[in-house]
Amino acid sequence: MITARSVIHSMARFYPASGAKRGQPPGTLAVHPAAPGAPPVRVQLFGFGPEDLREEPSVAFDEAAAAVGEAPVTWINIDGVHDADLLRRAGERFGLHPLTIEDIAHVGQRPRYEDTDGYLFVVLHMLRYETDTGLVTAEQISLVVGRGFVLSFQEREGDVFGVIRDRLRLDKGRGRRGGADYLAYALMDAIVDQYFTVLERLGESLANLEEEVVTRPAPAALQELHRLKRELIFLRKSVWPLRECIGGLHRSDSPLLERATSVYLRDLYDHTMHVIDTVETFRDMVSGMLDIYLSSVSNRMNEVMKLLTVIATIFIPLTFLAGVYGMNFDHMPELHWRWGYFGTLGVMLAIGLGMLAWFRRRHWL
Amino acid sequence: MITARSVIHSMARFYPASGAKRGQPPGTLAVHPAAPGAPPVRVQLFGFGPEDLREEPSVAFDEAAAAVGEAPVTWINIDGVHDADLLRRAGERFGLHPLTIEDIAHVGQRPRYEDTDGYLFVVLHMLRYETDTGLVTAEQISLVVGRGFVLSFQEREGDVFGVIRDRLRLDKGRGRRGGADYLAYALMDAIVDQYFTVLERLGESLANLEEEVVTRPAPAALQELHRLKRELIFLRKSVWPLRECIGGLHRSDSPLLERATSVYLRDLYDHTMHVIDTVETFRDMVSGMLDIYLSSVSNRMNEVMKLLTVIATIFIPLTFLAGVYGMNFDHMPELHWRWGYFGTLGVMLAIGLGMLAWFRRRHWL
Amino acid sequence: MITARSVIHSMARFYPASGAKRGQPPGTLAVHPAAPGAPPVRVQLFGFGPEDLREEPSVAFDEAAAAVGEAPVTWINIDGVHDADLLRRAGERFGLHPLTIEDIAHVGQRPRYEDTDGYLFVVLHMLRYETDTGLVTAEQISLVVGRGFVLSFQEREGDVFGVIRDRLRLDKGRGRRGGADYLAYALMDAIVDQYFTVLERLGESLANLEEEVVTRPAPAALQELHRLKRELIFLRKSVWPLRECIGGLHRSDSPLLERATSVYLRDLYDHTMHVIDTVETFRDMVSGMLDIYLSSVSNRMNEVMKLLTVIATIFIPLTFLAGVYGMNFDHMPELHWRWGYFGTLGVMLAIGLGMLAWFRRRHWL
Amino acid sequence: MITARSVIHSMARFYPASGAKRGQPPGTLAVHPAAPGAPPVRVQLFGFGPEDLREEPSVAFDEAAAAVGEAPVTWINIDGVHDADLLRRAGERFGLHPLTIEDIAHVGQRPRYEDTDGYLFVVLHMLRYETDTGLVTAEQISLVVGRGFVLSFQEREGDVFGVIRDRLRLDKGRGRRGGADYLAYALMDAIVDQYFTVLERLGESLANLEEEVVTRPAPAALQELHRLKRELIFLRKSVWPLRECIGGLHRSDSPLLERATSVYLRDLYDHTMHVIDTVETFRDMVSGMLDIYLSSVSNRMNEVMKLLTVIATIFIPLTFLAGVYGMNFDHMPELHWRWGYFGTLGVMLAIGLGMLAWFRRRHWL
Amino acid sequence: MITARSVIHSMARFYPASGAKRGQPPGTLAVHPAAPGAPPVRVQLFGFGPEDLREEPSVAFDEAAAAVGEAPVTWINIDGVHDADLLRRAGERFGLHPLTIEDIAHVGQRPRYEDTDGYLFVVLHMLRYETDTGLVTAEQISLVVGRGFVLSFQEREGDVFGVIRDRLRLDKGRGRRGGADYLAYALMDAIVDQYFTVLERLGESLANLEEEVVTRPAPAALQELHRLKRELIFLRKSVWPLRECIGGLHRSDSPLLERATSVYLRDLYDHTMHVIDTVETFRDMVSGMLDIYLSSVSNRMNEVMKLLTVIATIFIPLTFLAGVYGMNFDHMPELHWRWGYFGTLGVMLAIGLGMLAWFRRRHWL
Repeated sequence: MITARSVIHSMARFYPASGAKRGQPPGTLAVHPAAPGAPPVRVQLFGFGPEDLREEPSVAFDEAAAAVGEAPVTWINIDGVHDADLLRRAGERFGLHPLTIEDIAHVGQRPRYEDTDGYLFVVLHMLRYETDTGLVTAEQISLVVGRGFVLSFQEREGDVFGVIRDRLRLDKGRGRRGGADYLAYALMDAIVDQYFTVLERLGESLANLEEEVVTRPAPAALQELHRLKRELIFLRKSVWPLRECIGGLHRSDSPLLERATSVYLRDLYDHTMHVIDTVETFRDMVSGMLDIYLSSVSNRMNEVMKLLTVIATIFIPLTFLAGVYGMNFDHMPELHWRWGYFGTLGVMLAIGLGMLAWFRRRHWL
Repeated sequence: MITARSVIHSMARFYPASGAKRGQPPGTLAVHPAAPGAPPVRVQLFGFGPEDLREEPSVAFDEAAAAVGEAPVTWINIDGVHDADLLRRAGERFGLHPLTIEDIAHVGQRPRYEDTDGYLFVVLHMLRYETDTGLVTAEQISLVVGRGFVLSFQEREGDVFGVIRDRLRLDKGRGRRGGADYLAYALMDAIVDQYFTVLERLGESLANLEEEVVTRPAPAALQELHRLKRELIFLRKSVWPLRECIGGLHRSDSPLLERATSVYLRDLYDHTMHVIDTVETFRDMVSGMLDIYLSSVSNRMNEVMKLLTVIATIFIPLTFLAGVYGMNFDHMPELHWRWGYFGTLGVMLAIGLGMLAWFRRRHWL
Repeated sequence: MITARSVIHSMARFYPASGAKRGQPPGTLAVHPAAPGAPPVRVQLFGFGPEDLREEPSVAFDEAAAAVGEAPVTWINIDGVHDADLLRRAGERFGLHPLTIEDIAHVGQRPRYEDTDGYLFVVLHMLRYETDTGLVTAEQISLVVGRGFVLSFQEREGDVFGVIRDRLRLDKGRGRRGGADYLAYALMDAIVDQYFTVLERLGESLANLEEEVVTRPAPAALQELHRLKRELIFLRKSVWPLRECIGGLHRSDSPLLERATSVYLRDLYDHTMHVIDTVETFRDMVSGMLDIYLSSVSNRMNEVMKLLTVIATIFIPLTFLAGVYGMNFDHMPELHWRWGYFGTLGVMLAIGLGMLAWFRRRHWL
Repeated sequence: MITARSVIHSMARFYPASGAKRGQPPGTLAVHPAAPGAPPVRVQLFGFGPEDLREEPSVAFDEAAAAVGEAPVTWINIDGVHDADLLRRAGERFGLHPLTIEDIAHVGQRPRYEDTDGYLFVVLHMLRYETDTGLVTAEQISLVVGRGFVLSFQEREGDVFGVIRDRLRLDKGRGRRGGADYLAYALMDAIVDQYFTVLERLGESLANLEEEVVTRPAPAALQELHRLKRELIFLRKSVWPLRECIGGLHRSDSPLLERATSVYLRDLYDHTMHVIDTVETFRDMVSGMLDIYLSSVSNRMNEVMKLLTVIATIFIPLTFLAGVYGMNFDHMPELHWRWGYFGTLGVMLAIGLGMLAWFRRRHWL
Repeated sequence: MITARSVIHSMARFYPASGAKRGQPPGTLAVHPAAPGAPPVRVQLFGFGPEDLREEPSVAFDEAAAAVGEAPVTWINIDGVHDADLLRRAGERFGLHPLTIEDIAHVGQRPRYEDTDGYLFVVLHMLRYETDTGLVTAEQISLVVGRGFVLSFQEREGDVFGVIRDRLRLDKGRGRRGGADYLAYALMDAIVDQYFTVLERLGESLANLEEEVVTRPAPAALQELHRLKRELIFLRKSVWPLRECIGGLHRSDSPLLERATSVYLRDLYDHTMHVIDTVETFRDMVSGMLDIYLSSVSNRMNEVMKLLTVIATIFIPLTFLAGVYGMNFDHMPELHWRWGYFGTLGVMLAIGLGMLAWFRRRHWL
């Protein structure tokens, strides 16, 4: 159902949140204050190499930062970006540019990557299909990839990286043998995989809707078409910059990306192309369905009009005839004829049948 | 006929199948389990040179792999990609990248080619027009082209490569004198030839439909238009990446492609361009026909409305007149006039004829 | 008139003919068998230099081939491509690639050029507007340009090159002083000139149609619009690849093209751009006219509806009133009033005039 | 007003005039014969340097040609291109390529520039908005820019260069201190300035029309929309090639263009971009207005239908009721009831008011 | 509300103002005369370095110009561009090209930047959403960035740079430690920030409108849709050139831009991309809503037609029947039957109920 509330919510997804930031000097850190009752920022630490793994599900940031360098690869995952102090210390500790910190804190950035001295900065959108509202929502994930470490910032706690954690624990896939760049790739891959899940959901809606539109178009289908169209517009807004971003990473000659990882990035790029193809295809499908829907409405209106016309065309002249012999003139010779009444009925029947035949010949019946 | 089942099937073609793979580490081999009763994976071997030909219609994979190098060119065709063990051994034997094996197993990949160390990897879609459902279906064909060998993987057993086998047996065309790259080209050419067959079928549907839409538009035509549009969207999704893929191969400077083969790839590229032109042209035609259809519906509605209006406009005033003289007032002098009745009939006739003349002057009749 | 036959014919123009070729090895020569009663393939020879001209209107191919080299430029024009033997001998004599011969024989290729060792190969579409069917038809013209010779292959005998022959005979323009490349340019220029003729015809249809659509839109105009749209789609399919082809030739650094000819090719390229601009402009015009047409239909429907509504709205209440006083109740005091009848007529008149005034105030009349 | 004549005229603007030229060898000079009574070709001469100015309002061409070199810059303006002899002499005197002369004579060329040995050749369209017909017309202006001289060819005498002449006379702006390239720039700038004038006129029409469409849409607005759309299509056809042309000149490294002039060409290029932006914006506006217009028509039709439905729905049942009590059965007890008549009237009133209330609740009234 | 006045005003925004300039030599300074009562041109001066700040809220231009060089960075802000004398002196003092001065004075230029010897020239549009008219208006801001100074020209006094002034005073952000290029960046950033504010306003209108269109479409929504579409077209016209401009600056290798500033320009470029994405997304949304609106209108018309058809189809035959028994023939046996009347009523009831059932089965009720 499209309600006013969901509409307004759905529109706000399309432009970056205002407020604290607008009018501040660039590079300023004006974090969104944590909503009351919001969970505190949580820092998770994974330090690993082919041989061993250190996992700290919740740790102080400074302790986590200090662990960088101990293991071949250190992954610090931060859930929540509303702790300005933590961000500032992260910036100092890892030499992040003020604009980088600003972009981490002010979520709603365009997906992109930046290749600065000393680290790669990647902004992505994690998409989620919310079954109850039928809305696709986006959460910003920021990755900072340095020599031997990856920082990942999530807007809210989520479970998208759970599969990565499990792999590290079980040492599945290239798992713990990859470097920081491979870990970053794995995180991005997990995010892009979510896009397919979202597309699958939309595809199911689309399939249901197509059946409905084709077999029994109803006004509700129109709202559903509109919803799907809007969600696809929203997806599109995330997906095209994503392509630029991953494509740029793939072509990047940053020393932080090993040659072996490039094959994986190429594969990831192909996935984003696949997502784009599918989004564009869905858009084409939706617009095709709208055409079908409108044509069906026209067709039905035509049918309604035809029935009205047939009924009216047959009975209006007959009613006129009845009216004529219902007049009260003194001198109406037909009224006194022996077979006047039945003759008139016969004429009426003949007119009616003649018209029916004519309509049938014109394929109206 | 578009049924719910065919619709859902048709939509699922647009996004890659989920399930086993989603959430697995990249390079993982999570094959689709063979459907119960599915035929076992079949391995065919062709070893040939200008002089001789060895053909094994069904052979163990390891035996086939061992034959590579015996003849100038070895072609191993594998029907079915659900045997994880076979794929793993193929990967080890021919030094395939884990992602390559994954892409072979997880069908539904985007057409593309990859130029890796030691081999070329090409993913194509083999299209088939299914006459009974009117759907175009795609099957993934993966080619691995190495020095002196070609591996081809088909989702299901099919006969598209039959013509190539016959040529090898008869040594027709450049037949057995070409290298592995020429064989790969010939396989791709056979696949692209199928696109023309599919286009021809769609073109016939389109021609039938155009005649129908132009001469006697019916609601069924609308569903057929929708079906064609959807199939063209589906084709498009396969064809555009195909162009990139073949174009890339043509421009590739891989040492595995001999210079003489480049002319053939250029020709193949022209064929894909031709396919694209035709698909886009068909799309234009379909959208033009939709316009025609909608206009015809409007025209007919207009005609219906005109008939109703003419009939109603003529008879409503006459019926009113008859009603007036059907009133039962005591003092209605006209009722007692000698020629009242016939005069009234005359007036009615005059009004009716006058209106007919007026409609005729406005070109409504 | 759009008939079923013309429609099917018109659709078949859009994809290459199947049959003989599909499934054959590339480079195979599977010519379309000559239709019974088709004229035999005719070979014309022109050998010329600034000083002299040898013209053989009909000559054996081998004799013509032997004449190459005798004069500075030799032009062999072959009408008909269904003589496989001739094509094979041409291929051997002039060292043509098997794919070149295949592309000459299997008409319906995409316009393009190929720069191979020893010769330039150009495929063009010669367009013709068939006045009786209103269809634009395309015929493939293949040119092989070598050092000192040009081979031109036409599907059917035609007169498009008549102007070139006359020029050679009269030595008009750069006429006989140009080389083989200039001759090839002149042939292509003659072909592209035909496009303007076709566009002019379509432009005339468009002008007639615009007047009709704007002043008195009729359903026939819709079919004509559809026809024009389809022909423009067809033109487009020939014109865009033509542009690539001529543009490529212009930029080509083939040693077969002299520098002086490049200016002419640039001019030819500008002509093709002009053709494209005009085709796209016509497409815009057609789509604009469709909008106008549909709006006119809506407008007229509106007018019809208004008339119906005005008539019905005025008379339905009056008829009701008449019906009331036509009831046969025993106690209806008005019936016995002295001025009941005339009073009722007056009330009816007042209601009718009041409604007319109201409609006039709303600008419905 | 769109009349048949203006329509045909308007369509002919879109493709180059045929006749004399088609089928002639390239580089042939087949001028359009001067219409009877056409003014003779007029040659104007301006020779100037920073210090002095020689102006000859009407001079023989050979005399003008002889003046080249006397002053630092010589500008020869030729009004009329139908004097083949003059063009031929100009070609010989200034070493023009035959194709250049052909392009000057055969007006209707695409805007473009050519950088040949010894001179720059620029073809532009001078646009004019004809207030009486509402058509935009284009006239070809050809410029030949050489070392120390500019030749300008106009189809007809016009006053667009009047401002340039005045500036030369008064030595305003860089006026007489610029070289031949600056003069050419000034001429082109004067031409592009005209585009803004045309756009302003179209913009005024658009503003009037928008008000009309939004406040009181009438069928005439549709024709006006169509006219504007067609004129914008026409403009577009001139403007896009203009951009290529000016952009090419700006990037050209011809020795005939001094570095100081490049800044001015860049500015001119920005102006053409501005023209393109505005044309595209206007197209968007027109298409938006068409949507509004169509929606308004739909809305009004809806309103008309509602009125009809309300009236018919209320009175049809009442009329039926009156009809029932107008029947002449012998045994109709209600007829003899004391309050039968008034009771029936009451029931009728109740039905009518009930329906009105129901319509009001559904917001139809 | 869209009024004639606002429409004309809104259209004039789309093309540059004419008048004084048209027909003048390029580089001429024909300023718009100040409207009577317009505030005089105001010159503000900021001279600052990391350590100190000199601020003069209103100063003579020559004095301000003389201050350049005293402090590391001097910012001269000029409100109003109608003082020709001031502009001329600025041109002389800072060595500005005549075209630069012209572009500053003749507001309505396309956003762009120019990299000339000695200074960078940037033209931007400052957008403002006017709440009372619902129009987006643009004001030209011109920046001249030289070594150690920035000149900014505003059409009217405004407060957009207020945040920058405050930052300089408080030395917030990089504040006073940045060079002239950083100051220019900060000014541009403040301008682009305004775009987000405008988008937010439009987004709110869009959200309100979507709710309205989806839940209760009314004709007023159509006008609002049209307004939004027009404003988005207007935005687009400013935004696309803005992207080119900022992108060009970012890629520029001008010595006036320090390497450190490049990161900020890159960030600014991302913001403009974000603005473009959002504008295009909004356009898609508006066009989707128009579809929804039109479909709703069709749906409602369908509903109206159905009601009319149901009522008319039921009662027209019944009324005919009543008419038949209202005829005055002498010999109508049914009239004299004992149960004739009630039987007829029963038949009528049966017909009516039968029809109702039939309509219900067809899902019309």
